[in-house]
Amino acid sequence: MHYNQGYRLSDLAARVGGRVSGDPACVIHSLATLQTAGPGQLSFFANGRYLKQLRDSVAEAVLVTQAFEAEVKGNALVVADPYLAFAELTQLFDWRSAIRPGIHPSAQVSDRAEVSPEAEIGPGVVVGDNVRIDAGASIGANSVIGSDSVIGVDSRLEANVTLYPNVRIGQRVLVHSGAVLGADGFGFAKSSERWVKICQLGGVEIGDDVEIGANTTIDRGALNDTRIERGVKLDNQIQVAHNVQIGEDTAIAGCTAIAGSTRIGRRCTVAGMSGITGHLDIADGTHITAMSLVSRSISRPGAYSSGTGLEPHQQWKRNVVRFRQLDELARRVRKLEQALEHISTEGQDDDGC
Amino acid sequence: MHYNQGYRLSDLAARVGGRVSGDPACVIHSLATLQTAGPGQLSFFANGRYLKQLRDSVAEAVLVTQAFEAEVKGNALVVADPYLAFAELTQLFDWRSAIRPGIHPSAQVSDRAEVSPEAEIGPGVVVGDNVRIDAGASIGANSVIGSDSVIGVDSRLEANVTLYPNVRIGQRVLVHSGAVLGADGFGFAKSSERWVKICQLGGVEIGDDVEIGANTTIDRGALNDTRIERGVKLDNQIQVAHNVQIGEDTAIAGCTAIAGSTRIGRRCTVAGMSGITGHLDIADGTHITAMSLVSRSISRPGAYSSGTGLEPHQQWKRNVVRFRQLDELARRVRKLEQALEHISTEGQDDDGC
Amino acid sequence: MHYNQGYRLSDLAARVGGRVSGDPACVIHSLATLQTAGPGQLSFFANGRYLKQLRDSVAEAVLVTQAFEAEVKGNALVVADPYLAFAELTQLFDWRSAIRPGIHPSAQVSDRAEVSPEAEIGPGVVVGDNVRIDAGASIGANSVIGSDSVIGVDSRLEANVTLYPNVRIGQRVLVHSGAVLGADGFGFAKSSERWVKICQLGGVEIGDDVEIGANTTIDRGALNDTRIERGVKLDNQIQVAHNVQIGEDTAIAGCTAIAGSTRIGRRCTVAGMSGITGHLDIADGTHITAMSLVSRSISRPGAYSSGTGLEPHQQWKRNVVRFRQLDELARRVRKLEQALEHISTEGQDDDGC
Repeated sequence: MHYNQGYRLSDLAARVGGRVSGDPACVIHSLATLQTAGPGQLSFFANGRYLKQLRDSVAEAVLVTQAFEAEVKGNALVVADPYLAFAELTQLFDWRSAIRPGIHPSAQVSDRAEVSPEAEIGPGVVVGDNVRIDAGASIGANSVIGSDSVIGVDSRLEANVTLYPNVRIGQRVLVHSGAVLGADGFGFAKSSERWVKICQLGGVEIGDDVEIGANTTIDRGALNDTRIERGVKLDNQIQVAHNVQIGEDTAIAGCTAIAGSTRIGRRCTVAGMSGITGHLDIADGTHITAMSLVSRSISRPGAYSSGTGLEPHQQWKRNVVRFRQLDELARRVRKLEQALEHISTEGQDDDGC
Repeated sequence: MHYNQGYRLSDLAARVGGRVSGDPACVIHSLATLQTAGPGQLSFFANGRYLKQLRDSVAEAVLVTQAFEAEVKGNALVVADPYLAFAELTQLFDWRSAIRPGIHPSAQVSDRAEVSPEAEIGPGVVVGDNVRIDAGASIGANSVIGSDSVIGVDSRLEANVTLYPNVRIGQRVLVHSGAVLGADGFGFAKSSERWVKICQLGGVEIGDDVEIGANTTIDRGALNDTRIERGVKLDNQIQVAHNVQIGEDTAIAGCTAIAGSTRIGRRCTVAGMSGITGHLDIADGTHITAMSLVSRSISRPGAYSSGTGLEPHQQWKRNVVRFRQLDELARRVRKLEQALEHISTEGQDDDGC
Repeated sequence: MHYNQGYRLSDLAARVGGRVSGDPACVIHSLATLQTAGPGQLSFFANGRYLKQLRDSVAEAVLVTQAFEAEVKGNALVVADPYLAFAELTQLFDWRSAIRPGIHPSAQVSDRAEVSPEAEIGPGVVVGDNVRIDAGASIGANSVIGSDSVIGVDSRLEANVTLYPNVRIGQRVLVHSGAVLGADGFGFAKSSERWVKICQLGGVEIGDDVEIGANTTIDRGALNDTRIERGVKLDNQIQVAHNVQIGEDTAIAGCTAIAGSTRIGRRCTVAGMSGITGHLDIADGTHITAMSLVSRSISRPGAYSSGTGLEPHQQWKRNVVRFRQLDELARRVRKLEQALEHISTEGQDDDGC
């Protein structure tokens, strides 16, 4: 759909610091997988399991390490890390167009907002008082920016994003549609049987180079800010509660929920649908596998898991019943051990007679 | 609220291929449960557990199988499958009104979009370049349609839906509010400690007769498309990652997450809050129970589960401790078995003396 | 950011029924945690674990119980329940401004809607036919209100909220951005291999003083209404299926899903990411811990849990294998017990010789 004039393979090689084996003048119009790539298309080989696909591929060119250069039928673009080089080259073929600076006439921008003439404000956007939107920033259609918020240089909000008041976003941040930043944290005090709302007086601070997935929610802090540090990547439908802090370069997959005041370290990875309870401290370099419940702090980096594996339903039902009796079962085993010890001791006594 | 002129019971019978036992001229104005239905209301009996409710019901008429015809006090509408007949009749009483073709003056439609004069574009809608919207389609208020997308005949987007560029939707599709189709898949390559974005160059393809729930997210593919086949039903808050494929007539309940490149077969059912990890292949006719983690491919149809059952918290805490020692417990049992075998062997030796 | 003229400590004391120990004329401009509070700031001490922080705090004043009054360096505001008093005082410092009555010129309000002149309708809002919006209500930017809906006195919808037709909201309700109320329940009947939609003819009813979190979804009922009673607090990204009923003052944390027709009692708490299957009855005063699966009714109040605890991944893998063999393990233990019983019986026989 986005016709691309194409790049000479040699130009792509220069871009990723690679070496061409084959025809450096061949032209690449798009990227594709090994299985689907054909003339004019560049693919990549980054996983030994797909060696057969590499051998069968009719791609115009393939990104490979030197070790597999000889396996490429067409042209090879030899690099140290083909997956990383591929990632870098995807950016040449992206569908996102350059921003078109200016404020769409249907947008409602407060007189007291400060919008860079080099920013783009889409149709139907609403911008509150005292908002600052910097050069190169782009606000997608029908998004709403609450008062006292900041959108840094080159940051992009897709369509239908909502920012509450006092949400500060750094530079080169990408926020996907449906994300809500700065909604009230879930805070109530109990008065007899009723809940009394604790107004959430803090804000949200998002560092540079963060990406926030579709329909992800990041609540404002109760008193201090909720804080997402530089380089954090959040997938879709993640829930980040009030006063959470997420350290630099941590990546969290879809549908994970993080409860209030928990601090997650740097360079962690959290797989999808995990739950992290409140007021915890998770060490730098921790890795959580899918659908795990983290209910205590982790001081030692490493991989952690909870849950049980998948089984046929009937078998699982029997095991689940046994799980409920597990403590009892363990006590019975202890008893057996004691009984047996008793027997063998008796035996020894007999021997001693 | 939507006053309905009503249908004669005989007309409803004709519609669902049923037979009236009682007064075929009685008039039905609305549908209701056995417990609440009264004069002018039609109910249904589809579950033996509710036999008492059937007997007590004062509904004007009840959909039943022949086997229970005699239990109906009022009029009976006898059909082979009362629940299915009920489903078909709900469509006569729906609150959704016929679409009102035309583009609302507050909508922002690109000059380069192709909108059928028989489509309805609601207030505040934004339609990008090269979009095609077919006859009978309806776009709800404040929805945003990215460029190069297609909305097929009679498809309906409710209010506040977001489509990114290059999302192609078939015919008679229903997309609920807050759904986001085509946001970037979660793809990054690692460069030393930083993440390098892999731009997501694929699109999304939605087959005919699909339903997509509120706040569900379906990411665009990395290179190829993410694909939801004909007749798939997705509930609310489901996350479908990049390059997932979901086969025809599969139904997935709320809050389930499916990680990248997984292929789910046809006629599967996945209960709510399940997690399915990436790059798996799930056979046609697989059924996953609620809150299960599917972390390997399933080649054999059937029902699968994971997790543990609910217990009183104190008891559960003891069992959870034992779960952490389960491998050790199993080894201890093995040892006991060996010790006992040894003892009984000795016994036999003794006998042999 | 919101400069506050400040309150004399004695005025705050009067408001929460407390007693000042120290300077009643000191002025409080904002609230802060013990660690960050300084001159002009009020903090609170509600958890014995933070006693050191209380002792070190340089807050202008601190909310404490009489028991800890002597530990406060600065001024003390002595109350029976410091956390509750803090909650009440947050409301004086909230960033939410008073509503500005009137309909924004960019809003699209049906001629057949009835909007109080004392209500605020934000930019880009769309209001359908026969909607009633009462005095003091506020509808945030780009929200959409379907026909036949009601927004009660002093209720507030934040930006980008969606209400389908026939959603009735009580008084003083707060609905956060991205929430979708009234989307179709997930109901289909099977016809051979295809799904036939059951149109969802019921509505949604929300009681007074309810709070609904960002991106939470509450489906309309199939025939009757889905019903959330007075004082219920729902966090972000919760899924409430059709015909669910949630009793007064129940609080549910983020990402929990409740399947169709389940009734949850009053004053329950459900921690985050829990799943509650359909057609259940949960007793008043039930508490569910994080990430639990509730798959049967609960008739006795108390705390309930499911799942396993977090462990290092390698250890967990071994235990998960054993879980699959748990029923077999239990049978082996039973066998051991029987064998041992046999041995000791034999022993007794021997003795009897």
